[in-house]
Amino acid sequence: MSEERLKIGVFDSGFGGLTVLRALLRRLPELDFLYLGDTARLPYGSKSQSTIARYALSSTRFLIEQGAEFLVIACNTASALALDEIRASTTLPVLGVIDTGVNEAQSGTRTRDILVIGTDATIGSHAYARASRARGLRAMEKACPLLVPLVEEGWTDHPVAAEVVRIYLSELLAQAAVAGLKPDTLVLGCTHYPLLRGAIEAAVPPGIRVIDSAEATADRVARTLEPRPESAAGTGERRFFATDSVEKFQSLGTRFLGSSIRNIELVDLGG
Amino acid sequence: MSEERLKIGVFDSGFGGLTVLRALLRRLPELDFLYLGDTARLPYGSKSQSTIARYALSSTRFLIEQGAEFLVIACNTASALALDEIRASTTLPVLGVIDTGVNEAQSGTRTRDILVIGTDATIGSHAYARASRARGLRAMEKACPLLVPLVEEGWTDHPVAAEVVRIYLSELLAQAAVAGLKPDTLVLGCTHYPLLRGAIEAAVPPGIRVIDSAEATADRVARTLEPRPESAAGTGERRFFATDSVEKFQSLGTRFLGSSIRNIELVDLGG
Repeated sequence: MSEERLKIGVFDSGFGGLTVLRALLRRLPELDFLYLGDTARLPYGSKSQSTIARYALSSTRFLIEQGAEFLVIACNTASALALDEIRASTTLPVLGVIDTGVNEAQSGTRTRDILVIGTDATIGSHAYARASRARGLRAMEKACPLLVPLVEEGWTDHPVAAEVVRIYLSELLAQAAVAGLKPDTLVLGCTHYPLLRGAIEAAVPPGIRVIDSAEATADRVARTLEPRPESAAGTGERRFFATDSVEKFQSLGTRFLGSSIRNIELVDLGG
Repeated sequence: MSEERLKIGVFDSGFGGLTVLRALLRRLPELDFLYLGDTARLPYGSKSQSTIARYALSSTRFLIEQGAEFLVIACNTASALALDEIRASTTLPVLGVIDTGVNEAQSGTRTRDILVIGTDATIGSHAYARASRARGLRAMEKACPLLVPLVEEGWTDHPVAAEVVRIYLSELLAQAAVAGLKPDTLVLGCTHYPLLRGAIEAAVPPGIRVIDSAEATADRVARTLEPRPESAAGTGERRFFATDSVEKFQSLGTRFLGSSIRNIELVDLGG
């Protein structure tokens, strides 16, 4: 470990946040990264606000104890429901995926009407609608609870996934039309969804731009850290922590990170 | 509370065990029932043995503290992976759903070849295969991880559910044929699956008997408790406990129990 390299803690309930880490590693290979997947308690997306906040706080506390100096909440559900609690618990900078996704939507939309898909908890929180309203955008949101299980089953290029995506998105487009919205942007409000990008792009009319908040978040982190010190070179340290089976983390996580994961450490957060 | 009425503790990771409770209430309405759904930590089906055992032990300990005198593990995953630990932790009688399901299969099969479907963790444990082998049956097992999310999304009568069930079962039937099995029985090794019974029966060849372990377990409990005391009359007390949102437990649980649920108590098992 080097004294000069910033250590970034990336937190998700499971594997999806590895899509954010993947985007971060491409932009900031020289930094140290700690990743925690709270896999013993996933999924967060179907749980209540107080339970999600409790889980997220114990997770980020762990990352801080491990030396994280900058926290990325790479989980839409935790960003939607626990960001205030996390920020109140630390003096470190904390970045969530929702603001970054909506900022990216704002920078590209011409109609100022956007669509958002996510888990039950993320959508039920209306965090995307609030963040959109604050930027003068109108958002139509829809929970798509079957998409995470489809990704975890590995059916990302499967006709069933295409059909489920088509059903959810046609319902969302119909709702938007009824409300008089003319959306030109779709925000993927869950870090699992980039793996279904093909099916999603096939299910929306041409001209709708699909935003992956993993990429948007990594861009934001990279901009926040500029200018980087001269000493920034080489490859930093990567440590992976999981609260459940390291074998499962290794096999499933590799699909999300796009490269193999070694040295996963099992941690007990008392859940 | 009456001194004479037996208090039965029913435990599941979530809502599926309510199909077992429903079958129990039909047979033993005069008894007291405590039901705990460990909804803050569900689903168990995708987690590791040590995590499942830890969660199951803290859950059954809670039911015992609340006065349970007989424990029904109404969760296939916990029955597969934590029954020994639960039995070692208490002197109370403990009944799991796996032995009862396989006993029921044994009593009806002529070919002695059976099929079993369940969650990743249940199937990965091979608990059904072991229980079958111990009874001289051959079992072909298959994990069907999308079925629980489909039930929880409410898509039980949906074409997508029919298609997913058809894909899983045709793969299972093909595996069984390759192995030279001639199955005449299919055990539903997850308490969510009875809600997909229509789609499941449509996807298997005629002549395959479908066994719902909820019904088999309730039969077994009723037989274990016979003869019941003369004082057995009227309706006993029912208490419901959940570790996450009581509102969600009420709305989703009602679908599984088949009648409305009142007075759900939120408990914190420290997860």
